[in-house]
Amino acid sequence: MRPVRPEYNYLPEKNPALKKIYRIIYYADTKAGKIFDVILLLLILISTALAMMETVSLINVKYNHIFYEIQFVITILFTLEYALRILSIRNKKAYIFSGMGIIDFLAIAPFYLSLIFPVLHFFVIIRMLRMLRIFRIFNLADYQQDGIFIVKALKESSRKIYIFLLFLVIFIIIIGSCMYVIEDGKNGFSSIPQSIYWAVVTITTVGYGDVSPATAGGKFLSIIVMLCGYSIIAVPTGIVTSQFRKQAKSGISCERCGNEENDKNARFCKICGEKF
Amino acid sequence: MRPVRPEYNYLPEKNPALKKIYRIIYYADTKAGKIFDVILLLLILISTALAMMETVSLINVKYNHIFYEIQFVITILFTLEYALRILSIRNKKAYIFSGMGIIDFLAIAPFYLSLIFPVLHFFVIIRMLRMLRIFRIFNLADYQQDGIFIVKALKESSRKIYIFLLFLVIFIIIIGSCMYVIEDGKNGFSSIPQSIYWAVVTITTVGYGDVSPATAGGKFLSIIVMLCGYSIIAVPTGIVTSQFRKQAKSGISCERCGNEENDKNARFCKICGEKF
Amino acid sequence: MRPVRPEYNYLPEKNPALKKIYRIIYYADTKAGKIFDVILLLLILISTALAMMETVSLINVKYNHIFYEIQFVITILFTLEYALRILSIRNKKAYIFSGMGIIDFLAIAPFYLSLIFPVLHFFVIIRMLRMLRIFRIFNLADYQQDGIFIVKALKESSRKIYIFLLFLVIFIIIIGSCMYVIEDGKNGFSSIPQSIYWAVVTITTVGYGDVSPATAGGKFLSIIVMLCGYSIIAVPTGIVTSQFRKQAKSGISCERCGNEENDKNARFCKICGEKF
Amino acid sequence: MRPVRPEYNYLPEKNPALKKIYRIIYYADTKAGKIFDVILLLLILISTALAMMETVSLINVKYNHIFYEIQFVITILFTLEYALRILSIRNKKAYIFSGMGIIDFLAIAPFYLSLIFPVLHFFVIIRMLRMLRIFRIFNLADYQQDGIFIVKALKESSRKIYIFLLFLVIFIIIIGSCMYVIEDGKNGFSSIPQSIYWAVVTITTVGYGDVSPATAGGKFLSIIVMLCGYSIIAVPTGIVTSQFRKQAKSGISCERCGNEENDKNARFCKICGEKF
Repeated sequence: MRPVRPEYNYLPEKNPALKKIYRIIYYADTKAGKIFDVILLLLILISTALAMMETVSLINVKYNHIFYEIQFVITILFTLEYALRILSIRNKKAYIFSGMGIIDFLAIAPFYLSLIFPVLHFFVIIRMLRMLRIFRIFNLADYQQDGIFIVKALKESSRKIYIFLLFLVIFIIIIGSCMYVIEDGKNGFSSIPQSIYWAVVTITTVGYGDVSPATAGGKFLSIIVMLCGYSIIAVPTGIVTSQFRKQAKSGISCERCGNEENDKNARFCKICGEKF
Repeated sequence: MRPVRPEYNYLPEKNPALKKIYRIIYYADTKAGKIFDVILLLLILISTALAMMETVSLINVKYNHIFYEIQFVITILFTLEYALRILSIRNKKAYIFSGMGIIDFLAIAPFYLSLIFPVLHFFVIIRMLRMLRIFRIFNLADYQQDGIFIVKALKESSRKIYIFLLFLVIFIIIIGSCMYVIEDGKNGFSSIPQSIYWAVVTITTVGYGDVSPATAGGKFLSIIVMLCGYSIIAVPTGIVTSQFRKQAKSGISCERCGNEENDKNARFCKICGEKF
Repeated sequence: MRPVRPEYNYLPEKNPALKKIYRIIYYADTKAGKIFDVILLLLILISTALAMMETVSLINVKYNHIFYEIQFVITILFTLEYALRILSIRNKKAYIFSGMGIIDFLAIAPFYLSLIFPVLHFFVIIRMLRMLRIFRIFNLADYQQDGIFIVKALKESSRKIYIFLLFLVIFIIIIGSCMYVIEDGKNGFSSIPQSIYWAVVTITTVGYGDVSPATAGGKFLSIIVMLCGYSIIAVPTGIVTSQFRKQAKSGISCERCGNEENDKNARFCKICGEKF
Repeated sequence: MRPVRPEYNYLPEKNPALKKIYRIIYYADTKAGKIFDVILLLLILISTALAMMETVSLINVKYNHIFYEIQFVITILFTLEYALRILSIRNKKAYIFSGMGIIDFLAIAPFYLSLIFPVLHFFVIIRMLRMLRIFRIFNLADYQQDGIFIVKALKESSRKIYIFLLFLVIFIIIIGSCMYVIEDGKNGFSSIPQSIYWAVVTITTVGYGDVSPATAGGKFLSIIVMLCGYSIIAVPTGIVTSQFRKQAKSGISCERCGNEENDKNARFCKICGEKF
């Protein structure tokens, strides 16, 4: 997911009217553009809030119709905006298949589909994702950069985290199976999948307590598992922290020798001596 | 929140009596000042303890009246102190709107307001915050510095944490909505807000267990969410740890070239060679 | 556990037919070898899934016989493969007692033993561990390296973690005993082992809630224990993170002076000046 | 707590018999000394295990008398050992008031006192602490060093952790009070101390679920508190990790200029150029 719009090679249509619309809906550097963005943000918030409140039966009984109508209007506005976004941009394909383009589409599709499949109705909530545009609206360049920093750190450490999760899943399945045998299929450990659910709840230290060991053997194994989980939880933290630290330190890259690890305040490349 | 009093430009009134009072209540370097501070600390502790115990019905039934009277006396003493603090300082505005000045006001206001709005009575507990003065009282300069270190680290990383929380909130709302659809509004997942409450309880690994999935699909999604939460919890830790490490390492800043990353024990700036 | 096959001194039998088989089952660099590995992976997944689903009574009632037959066939295939692995390798002992060799054996043994001791039936799940071969199958060299990185970091920090666990266990036993005395053997704290179970559940922040303090004294001690646990959880994280960071930074080792801490992009040893 | 015996200025009595006894019980470098230590360790383990099992009513009913008798014998042996330890050492005061000396005393005192005050009986478990001698018994020098490393890191960061806990306690009390007001003294939030218990259970992510919010307002505040707690948990981890890293890196200290931060593999002081 890229919360930011890739600026380069995004160009408006040549038609001057579309060019103007383009500037308003894709940028926030004109007055009209800013107003447009703030209205958009409000509509997203209202729409999300409504989708949530609709499910609270006490509220829904009373305001059912009004809610539906507001949601309907907002969806039409979003559809209009989506159409204008496609119309006003030159490289339509690039927009449609960009991260934000897909989110924009998913923000309106579920509503129309819900007219046929009512269950899809709740996926209206996906339009929440459009809030990621918030960075642009408020011109939060610093925040945007920090967001990219976090996303990058997670991406860089994702490979290590996947491997960690693979080990963890194998460990969890084995623990779950042992527990199923020990508790003998009773006390909520009615099957191996159920016992695996317990193992996940335990190792991640969530601990709902809807399934918990009742026999002495089960409790003993639980103690072992919990103490292991205590050490295991350190691994993803270690991975991510190490990556954060590495990124925070990485500095100017030298154009002559390609060294990327010069200190941020360095004046000379520490490998080849090139002056920056 | 700044737990420490900004020393500079805080001056006493010129009147010699007020000057004396100023020295006693703002400083702890005279014997009277120390006694004053210790009494103040005791009053805060007693008052907070009383406010808590008042709510325990077994105790309250018996000592209701005594508690109220003690609280009353302490509040009057605090009010007196507040008045003296304002009177004895030259720049009254600076004190009143400083962090500690506001806390001092909030420590007395709820009690008087509770005579009109009884519900405000419990906010007497705010006077607890006055305990932050503890650093000054015991002259805990080292502790104070470490406190500033922590607060600074949190402030510096706050931007990253806000962004992380924005991502997290969007993730939580989407997970909550999915769970509402999967569990079909049953088993405690009676509405999307309620499901969001479950999602927060799960991802933060609190896991009360008052709402927990009952269907196979719900349990499967829970497992995914918990394993994700396991990796997600690493992010704020990574942010803060990285910041702590950075701060712990940052050392002497060079006056000539502005380099702020010289080792703490360096004798020469590592960028420009300036001798410290 | 070494998820990777130690390449060196693993040689095929001289017989050309066995040499061919060796290449197929031990390597994934021929077409036949790749197909073999993918089929193996599928069989492992199917077998593990079946072993799990067998325990879900609703499913088991219906498909009991089919499940058993599929499992039977897969086990025979695994046995065949195990035999071929032993036959086609020259140093049979090295394979049999290698990490993966033992796992391969454990993947088939429980099934045959379960014909005599039915309880062992569930240990069929151990064949899951064979999935660790996944790294080789998809030629995930980068992933494999990251896996080794994590395992190495845990091994390096294991000594510190053992000591931490020793301290923790002593702390837990003492807290458990105190709690047993305070709660007076009631409210689920029926014995010291039971109270120790509670202490582990609490300090690891799992918090099932099946045992929780009911008296004021017990709640007070719980608060102390939880706040301590909050600080204690930082220790394993600190140990592992520190190790991760250290490993991530460690670079080229100098052949002349043995210095192992040269930067990864260094061209000269920072101790003796040797050129790399 | 110092798990290790401070070697220096610990001298045996001059009497040759006592000198021999001293060597056996204080050191593990003779055969008799090793046997003595292993027996001691076994007695500690047996005694601790018995103290635990005594409280399991099913077991206790049967073996009550035997348990008591074994415990009695072990305590007499420990008393004998304690007497010998005092007798055979020259500086008796130093031993008695050393960490291990106090633990040795506490290992026997509760048993005798329990003849008068039966409740003290359970404190027999304190003798568990004697297990800290395990490092010496098995000559685990590396482990011992790592243990000192961890203890040192915790000590060094203790000041920061205390301040963090002070902030946390103030935060918890205020949150607890707010919750008491919001939930209106119902749903388990029957008093402020009870609500504080809930706040601790929540912020430390233990989450028993014995007290959990039931009103919409309470759930909303809970969500805020949990998300805050998520960021707060990063603080102690950050403190300890940063300290671990700092310690792991600290190396040779220069005798000429006192610089303590030379790399572990440095050959020259990086401040003054002194050769090591």
